[in-house]
Amino acid sequence: MDIQQLKGLIQQMTLEEKIAQLLQLTAHFHEGTDNESQVTGPMEEMGITEPMVTGSGSVLGLSGAQAVIDVQQSYLKKSRLGIPLMFMADVVHGFKTIFPIPLAIGCSWDLELAEKSAEIAAKESAVSGIHVTFAPMVDLVRDPRWGRVMETTGEDPYLNGMFARAFVRGYQGSNLKEETDRLAACVKHFAAYGAPEGGRDYNTVNMSERQLREQYLPAYKAALDEGCEMVMTSFNTVDGIPATGNEKLMRGILRDEWGFDGVLISDWASIREMIAHGAAEDDREAAYRAIRAGVDIEMMTPCYVRHLPELVESGKVDEALIDEAVLRILRLKDKLGLFENPLRAADPEREKEILFCEEHRRVSYELAAKSSVLLKNDGVLPLRKDARVALIGPYAESNDILGWWSCVGEKEDAAPLASALKERFTGTLVVSEGCGIDSMTPEQLEAALETARSADIVVLALGEESAMSGEGGSRTNIRLPQAQLELVKWLKKLGKPMAAVIFNGRPLDLHGIFDEADAVLEAWFPGSEGGAAIADILTGRVNPSGRLTMSFPQSVGQVPVYYNHFNTGRPMDPSKSDERYVSKYIDSPNDPLLPFGFGLSYTSFEYSDLTLSSPEMKADEPITVQVKVTNTGERAGIETVQLYVRDVAGEVVRPLRELKGFERLELQPGESQTATFTLTEEQLRYHHSDLGFASDPGSFRVFVGANSRDTLEASFKLV
Amino acid sequence: MDIQQLKGLIQQMTLEEKIAQLLQLTAHFHEGTDNESQVTGPMEEMGITEPMVTGSGSVLGLSGAQAVIDVQQSYLKKSRLGIPLMFMADVVHGFKTIFPIPLAIGCSWDLELAEKSAEIAAKESAVSGIHVTFAPMVDLVRDPRWGRVMETTGEDPYLNGMFARAFVRGYQGSNLKEETDRLAACVKHFAAYGAPEGGRDYNTVNMSERQLREQYLPAYKAALDEGCEMVMTSFNTVDGIPATGNEKLMRGILRDEWGFDGVLISDWASIREMIAHGAAEDDREAAYRAIRAGVDIEMMTPCYVRHLPELVESGKVDEALIDEAVLRILRLKDKLGLFENPLRAADPEREKEILFCEEHRRVSYELAAKSSVLLKNDGVLPLRKDARVALIGPYAESNDILGWWSCVGEKEDAAPLASALKERFTGTLVVSEGCGIDSMTPEQLEAALETARSADIVVLALGEESAMSGEGGSRTNIRLPQAQLELVKWLKKLGKPMAAVIFNGRPLDLHGIFDEADAVLEAWFPGSEGGAAIADILTGRVNPSGRLTMSFPQSVGQVPVYYNHFNTGRPMDPSKSDERYVSKYIDSPNDPLLPFGFGLSYTSFEYSDLTLSSPEMKADEPITVQVKVTNTGERAGIETVQLYVRDVAGEVVRPLRELKGFERLELQPGESQTATFTLTEEQLRYHHSDLGFASDPGSFRVFVGANSRDTLEASFKLV
Repeated sequence: MDIQQLKGLIQQMTLEEKIAQLLQLTAHFHEGTDNESQVTGPMEEMGITEPMVTGSGSVLGLSGAQAVIDVQQSYLKKSRLGIPLMFMADVVHGFKTIFPIPLAIGCSWDLELAEKSAEIAAKESAVSGIHVTFAPMVDLVRDPRWGRVMETTGEDPYLNGMFARAFVRGYQGSNLKEETDRLAACVKHFAAYGAPEGGRDYNTVNMSERQLREQYLPAYKAALDEGCEMVMTSFNTVDGIPATGNEKLMRGILRDEWGFDGVLISDWASIREMIAHGAAEDDREAAYRAIRAGVDIEMMTPCYVRHLPELVESGKVDEALIDEAVLRILRLKDKLGLFENPLRAADPEREKEILFCEEHRRVSYELAAKSSVLLKNDGVLPLRKDARVALIGPYAESNDILGWWSCVGEKEDAAPLASALKERFTGTLVVSEGCGIDSMTPEQLEAALETARSADIVVLALGEESAMSGEGGSRTNIRLPQAQLELVKWLKKLGKPMAAVIFNGRPLDLHGIFDEADAVLEAWFPGSEGGAAIADILTGRVNPSGRLTMSFPQSVGQVPVYYNHFNTGRPMDPSKSDERYVSKYIDSPNDPLLPFGFGLSYTSFEYSDLTLSSPEMKADEPITVQVKVTNTGERAGIETVQLYVRDVAGEVVRPLRELKGFERLELQPGESQTATFTLTEEQLRYHHSDLGFASDPGSFRVFVGANSRDTLEASFKLV
Repeated sequence: MDIQQLKGLIQQMTLEEKIAQLLQLTAHFHEGTDNESQVTGPMEEMGITEPMVTGSGSVLGLSGAQAVIDVQQSYLKKSRLGIPLMFMADVVHGFKTIFPIPLAIGCSWDLELAEKSAEIAAKESAVSGIHVTFAPMVDLVRDPRWGRVMETTGEDPYLNGMFARAFVRGYQGSNLKEETDRLAACVKHFAAYGAPEGGRDYNTVNMSERQLREQYLPAYKAALDEGCEMVMTSFNTVDGIPATGNEKLMRGILRDEWGFDGVLISDWASIREMIAHGAAEDDREAAYRAIRAGVDIEMMTPCYVRHLPELVESGKVDEALIDEAVLRILRLKDKLGLFENPLRAADPEREKEILFCEEHRRVSYELAAKSSVLLKNDGVLPLRKDARVALIGPYAESNDILGWWSCVGEKEDAAPLASALKERFTGTLVVSEGCGIDSMTPEQLEAALETARSADIVVLALGEESAMSGEGGSRTNIRLPQAQLELVKWLKKLGKPMAAVIFNGRPLDLHGIFDEADAVLEAWFPGSEGGAAIADILTGRVNPSGRLTMSFPQSVGQVPVYYNHFNTGRPMDPSKSDERYVSKYIDSPNDPLLPFGFGLSYTSFEYSDLTLSSPEMKADEPITVQVKVTNTGERAGIETVQLYVRDVAGEVVRPLRELKGFERLELQPGESQTATFTLTEEQLRYHHSDLGFASDPGSFRVFVGANSRDTLEASFKLV
């Protein structure tokens, strides 16, 4: 349908029908409308009536082709104007085939593979009846206490933006009407949800608008520039006003300034939550603030359906606001082809074929293999082919490796490390649990020590359980649980080589492991095929290539610590660490334990010959930056060459380093390649105090290297 | 002199002479000008010439009446126009008689005594030749990692403002020319120095302008409203621009909006530090930004004297900017009476008389007694008169109880707790060190256990050494050092009652002490007479009455935690602590261990009969809030009755509780008194999203009680 047809349709709708389109409910309300006794309770509790349910525009969280078909068909039977439902769900890192958590995907620095994972997630979801995914989540985060850190790609605005684009491409493809195995994407959570105070989920966010624009908004904007169809509001306040009712943010920046004309949806209950925030006295005021801000769909609370009719009739809200919201929703339904094909790709037969199919699992495996980050290796990995290995720890035989938000993925489909290693390892493998996630019995410990005594090397399989991160999973303590640290201490006494594999959802304070083990592999929650991927890294079939996209702090007392910080007026000179009046702690380094961009390989790389095409850049004359990278080791490997820039003096202070580009090189032993980057004046622009976006002429420094700390350096002037 | 005379004087000055007035140096430059060999080095190092030194307008850090007299007289001999020097110093919590650290003074909630302490500090300093003190420091702080937390009065904008006013009154009196034993005050650090990221001194500050105005600016403003003569810039950036070069902050808010026309001084080297910040390419640009921002005096760097002449001559800086800066400086010199009386109160004879005199020490004692906060008491304090007491810990015999910035105060003048207690306690006292601040030998431990075994009760004297807080004293670990926690564990095994006294400069994570000891007394760094005051509390001669002005966190992983936070959209219901999707940590309570306003007494108080004069408030009709407080215990005591308000729904979200008033009641056993507060519409105003300062009609809740957590409650409507 074209816009005129859609507008014509809206003209036929009653005010109540229009407002019902703005309501999103979970499926059981719809399932219930065929069976009155099931739904009376929930409807009463929510204060809504059957016409509101049968007129509501979209459904949340239902999947399974047949179930969706049933609800859609039953719904259309009751629909006066034949407007189909849209089905939306949280497909975050895979649907049935689960990929590594997004924080891990970020560590792959592999945009193609990230895109591919989203494409597969879309395919599996679409065939199961879903039309829209509440992804990508692109919230920038600097605080590992926050549970949802596992859902982001990390602490860098540029990298998050690149992944945001890749995910949107993967989910949406190029034409949602034709490609019915794609989903509309919904970037979230707008805005700055990743900066809750104290790392406590849903907590207050505070920053200046300049910082918001500089660090936090770019990734959302990148998703929209890639054509992302929807945006979800965040739970937090943005400068004191809940995002969901924040006119300046939504109407001002998102719609007017950025020109976003797609569907804006509240997060779960976040319109009503304005009351708890203290930004609305009641549902009516909450509805008023949200519709004025430009929120189209209300998720799971009835403020719109119960109060917008009166607000419009009393003239407090212009009906044009309702009409434009409905138009956006109908336009998305049209883009998805739902008017012509309300069942879209939902297909119980094809569903059986492609969910968790071999091809999808292969991609999941590949991404897991590329997401794991080797943090330390004093020569003990890969495992000697004939070694006697003791695999010890609560994660040896655990399949809790999917991570939070793993949709319809099933742990039972994931092979634990022990069984995956058993299949792949040519030496001897003995296994012991050692302890639980957070408990240890004397028997467990004794068995583990016994197992270890007979081995040449101990491989520790440690971690957080998946519920220790994810939404609502914030921690004040970011070490591994005490029982596991105890286990490590006891095993250390045996004097055997030790390699630790860690399954978890956040940057951890690794003291107690990093100092004790000879090798540490950060496996994250690696998804359905993670067991196999990690086993292949341990045995050396795969050479690890992941690079951290968040700094690993020395301790929680050092948080936030991130690479793109400012110099301060009194930077510490590490060679004068006893100076008192410099910006430092008296009991800790300033630097993180492991910096952004860091990761080891089984081979080694050398950087040389950093050259700039010119010592001066002009607005219309970009500079080319080149560096030679040589594989100086014995194995083929992938190196992620990273380019950082520092603006030496700005109108406002600039970060010490900002990532401006990266290139992944595959290098055979002895091979050299040249990484080439183009650096333009546009890349040097930033938000000034008047919020203007411009570059400043003057000195710039360029850093190229293996991570944000270890780099070659050059400089140029912008004239 | 009147303004016209001062302007006439300025007209006689060369540009170089004017600019030299803007330079502040330490005294050794001046002492050196009589002895060329001493000063050549420092002058060369700083890149300044003798005329710059001999023309410089003020001196930093020199005290001692004779020394000041010598420098002033020698200076005036060389001065072409006879303009006297101003002598400034960091007189923060006393000069020779040291008072408790400001964080402790805050806990007294005693504004009169705080004022008195400043008056005494002024008297001692003035007679020693000082004219200006770099105090009060009124930076609001929410992060106990920050070392300078000891210099503030805490986390509340209202209370900080009240103390700011009290200190200014105390330092300045009512007429600086007539009262030569007063000092000009310099409020610092403008602005928001107390919010460095990660609690690391000098680190980046980020917040919205709205939050800056709402929480951080009020205390500076309060000091200025009280007539504070000077302002010092802060080291940090404010929204990306170093405060010292921040035109919007200094020229915009401080001068234009607030009308401040006094002297604005940089902090030590903070003009040049704009280069390290990355906000200036060189000294010249730093000078340019600072003079444009309105900074009058440059402390300890030569950007002004070396570059302003050329900047003025080239027309880049208007000479009017220099003239206005000089005028402000000369006007302050005139206010201080220096033109008539360049030696002012400096008097070696009187200096001997009044420094550390009996009367001053008495006030220091009184303030220490009122600053200590009894955090826990399971019936073991006060000590039984005939008890056998084992005083154990590194602070038993330590006189490191003055705290950072203790001017010319001397530890040797402070009696350690052991000797103070020996003088006052009627029972038996045995003493053992137990451990050092951060170390323990087996011999120390054994001796301590031996000492404790013979006692009826153990009094632990624990703490941070003074260098563990104060400027440059930031910590990532906010527990007491491990050795002391070990000591407590060992002593605990003896099963004796234990009371802990803690000397320190920040809110600590008290786990490991609070759970183990039967009583905990927060002594802070109590100053010269702290030993006596604490001893008198322990023996019961003094009934403790201090109340915390900062929350004590559960752990560093919970930081920041402060009482006047927001509700969030998903507040945790403590009765449903297993709900996942609420704002909480999975491993820690949200609430601090001890809330703002908390403190115990040797007696008990009961609150009743909370009444409001009306259920409605109008703009011109304030409400009266009354509550009855009864001393239900056996001893006389002081209760600090606290009034908090919550605006239920605002245009921007409002804190759960905001302190709006307090009253200190002295109650005999069994006595009741009524505390009465007037609440006006003006007190309900806050900064809206457009930065407008106004109240919102609607519902308000009123809380009155003994601290920010334990309160009676009522409500009213603003109509």
